[in-house]
Amino acid sequence: MNIPHIDLPRIVVIGCGFAGLNLVKTIRSKDYQVVLFDKNNYHTFQPLMYQVASAGLEPDSIVYPIRKVFNRKKNFHFRMATVHQIDSDNQLVYTSIGSIDYDFLVMATGADSNFFGMENIQKYSMPMKSLVEALNLRSVILQNFEKALHTSDITERQALMSFVIVGGGATGVELAGALAELKRYILPKDYPDLDIRKMQIHLVQGGDRLLPSMSSKASDNAEKFLRKMGVNVWLKVRANDYDGHALSTNDETYYTKTLVWTAGVKGVPTPGIKANYTKACRVLVNEYNQIEGYSTVFSVGDVAAHISEETPYGLPMLASVAVQQGVHLGKNFNRLAKEKELLPFEYKDKGTMATVGRNLAVVDLKSLKFGGGFAWFLWMLIHLMLLVDFRSRLVVFVNWAWSYIFYDKGTRLIVRKVPDKTQTSNNH
Amino acid sequence: MNIPHIDLPRIVVIGCGFAGLNLVKTIRSKDYQVVLFDKNNYHTFQPLMYQVASAGLEPDSIVYPIRKVFNRKKNFHFRMATVHQIDSDNQLVYTSIGSIDYDFLVMATGADSNFFGMENIQKYSMPMKSLVEALNLRSVILQNFEKALHTSDITERQALMSFVIVGGGATGVELAGALAELKRYILPKDYPDLDIRKMQIHLVQGGDRLLPSMSSKASDNAEKFLRKMGVNVWLKVRANDYDGHALSTNDETYYTKTLVWTAGVKGVPTPGIKANYTKACRVLVNEYNQIEGYSTVFSVGDVAAHISEETPYGLPMLASVAVQQGVHLGKNFNRLAKEKELLPFEYKDKGTMATVGRNLAVVDLKSLKFGGGFAWFLWMLIHLMLLVDFRSRLVVFVNWAWSYIFYDKGTRLIVRKVPDKTQTSNNH
Repeated sequence: MNIPHIDLPRIVVIGCGFAGLNLVKTIRSKDYQVVLFDKNNYHTFQPLMYQVASAGLEPDSIVYPIRKVFNRKKNFHFRMATVHQIDSDNQLVYTSIGSIDYDFLVMATGADSNFFGMENIQKYSMPMKSLVEALNLRSVILQNFEKALHTSDITERQALMSFVIVGGGATGVELAGALAELKRYILPKDYPDLDIRKMQIHLVQGGDRLLPSMSSKASDNAEKFLRKMGVNVWLKVRANDYDGHALSTNDETYYTKTLVWTAGVKGVPTPGIKANYTKACRVLVNEYNQIEGYSTVFSVGDVAAHISEETPYGLPMLASVAVQQGVHLGKNFNRLAKEKELLPFEYKDKGTMATVGRNLAVVDLKSLKFGGGFAWFLWMLIHLMLLVDFRSRLVVFVNWAWSYIFYDKGTRLIVRKVPDKTQTSNNH
Repeated sequence: MNIPHIDLPRIVVIGCGFAGLNLVKTIRSKDYQVVLFDKNNYHTFQPLMYQVASAGLEPDSIVYPIRKVFNRKKNFHFRMATVHQIDSDNQLVYTSIGSIDYDFLVMATGADSNFFGMENIQKYSMPMKSLVEALNLRSVILQNFEKALHTSDITERQALMSFVIVGGGATGVELAGALAELKRYILPKDYPDLDIRKMQIHLVQGGDRLLPSMSSKASDNAEKFLRKMGVNVWLKVRANDYDGHALSTNDETYYTKTLVWTAGVKGVPTPGIKANYTKACRVLVNEYNQIEGYSTVFSVGDVAAHISEETPYGLPMLASVAVQQGVHLGKNFNRLAKEKELLPFEYKDKGTMATVGRNLAVVDLKSLKFGGGFAWFLWMLIHLMLLVDFRSRLVVFVNWAWSYIFYDKGTRLIVRKVPDKTQTSNNH
């Protein structure tokens, strides 16, 4: 690989999600050479991905070119590549563009959808863990309405206009709310030839409440808001199988052409590390985010789990955890360069929030839990501030203000048509 | 097809480019039922497409959902479908979603790239006549730089960093200028590991001047501006063949992985009409835009050509012609409903313009031809005003202001990777 060997220890970082991005930002350039790999040339602001899927924002508002973030950083090299394998005995990683040696390695490879072995669901459902998946989902939603217009089969039309979201976490709740707003404000105007009241939005949750990682007050509020907006919320319902038309569960069967899967995530560790993993494929790390048994190999973000008495399953797979771990490990590297000892990581829970719709959000702070209009305003403000740069903030602000004032969404475009997965054999 | 028969004559319009859009806007709803077909659910503002290809704008800024444009229009039905065939004997059109009868038919199907039978060029070059093609071109440009980073073959690296644009019309000139700005302001910051001075931009034109449809002053200015910006302009050079690596011409051979083809367009008429066509596949129409031999079948925009003494090849294939023809035909339909006679179409040339780069554009008005900073300001102002809605204007304005002030472009993302066309067999 065309990367110069210089007189500094080399840190190889795999993945530029929240953990990798903040780690690299924090590492001091005069102490280390940093080589960063990601399969994309952009960082994704995942908390707003559901707005891309529901035609509210365009990709450029929520993703950010990695080269641009770091174009003033010295001793830094980004390569768009997939990392296939780690050889920790020889301190080497093998990538799609060749191999490279390291002094320190950080696995920040994140998480992907977990289908818990249900192959049909994996085959026919729409996941939403990447930008391309979110764009595909948007196209499928809009294509379904175009198809509903010209089918004369009533059962088919109803299945095209029914959307089932499995998973009642933040992504599922936020997407269900966004679809309800499309149904209420946008689609009746766009499709006067269709009876949009027949559009069904089902949110299916295995547990007994929505947003299980938040307070029960937030769960109750989110459920109340969603029901008010016309979303059918089903608790204690578990998906079993799906053939592209019928979703069978432990309860009734749902007929839908669009199953969105947000019900599970799992770590995606790079192969080659001799370590222990949780059931959700997360690699076990110690309090310094070192992978157990290694002193120079670290892991941060969703793919890492530190099991302790307080966190028997590891910390939750959240952006805020990943950000804090990235910054913390960066500081530890900087301490290491000065021959100071490493400091253990401690997660500071600054609160969690989720938005459901216009003037409807839920916020959990340490001492205060509330929902409604102010929560929604706070959600918007904080998410605007968290965006990587001023240009994105400006563009997102214009889009949000526009939607709020005119009850409109700008970007309901089918840019790439997605073939029907149950009929792919006909399309080739 | 699920479209009601009502007590009004039905006009079927094929295509929602500038001609179709303005036609439908102009037709009075109380006089006609209008059924519009397009293969996409959006209208594309083609004059700014090169900015999507060169990472300056996102798709939502230059395309507009068709349903949204017309969501208050009565007796109007849009269907996203491909029209396969016209049966003019029975007044029927056959589409991908079924057939429909018409009282009046308007073919506004526009134009596509013309490769003049050169199959290899068609196979390996990048055209830029649709939004998806523009997005693909953007991905390929950025992917090439990522690949250039990790090849150790100098010839290969040079071919990856060389861009040849064939065709010196407005699209070719504007794209060459945008690439030159990427080279100057963006890429050296993004790719500090590459010697960006080695990036070559070639603009190859068959005729003896650029912008042949504009004044010779505009041609001279555009050439001067491009050379100043570091673009290699080659006049009187005609492309013969291309294998994905080498472009052979009547002059020298150019080695490039990226050949952009903007050198020819041809009409894409719907099959089934018994009419005469020009060499460029445009259907011959009379001064009322009726297809010769028909009284109820019309054609407007790029696909139509009215041959007269002043226009032996038909009017140029320009947005402004299409807009005026659409509006004019709409007015003629409205006259027809009142049993007034049709009026002949006359093109009013309000001037033409093209932009080359920062503060560099050329403008031809009837009595005044000029180039430089004021032309560039005028170009921006007019294009902002021509955009379909206020939201797009705001978003485009934010992006342009940002680029202007910070010498930056926001959206250099590789969202969908495009496989190397010369190596597709390896990728499956």
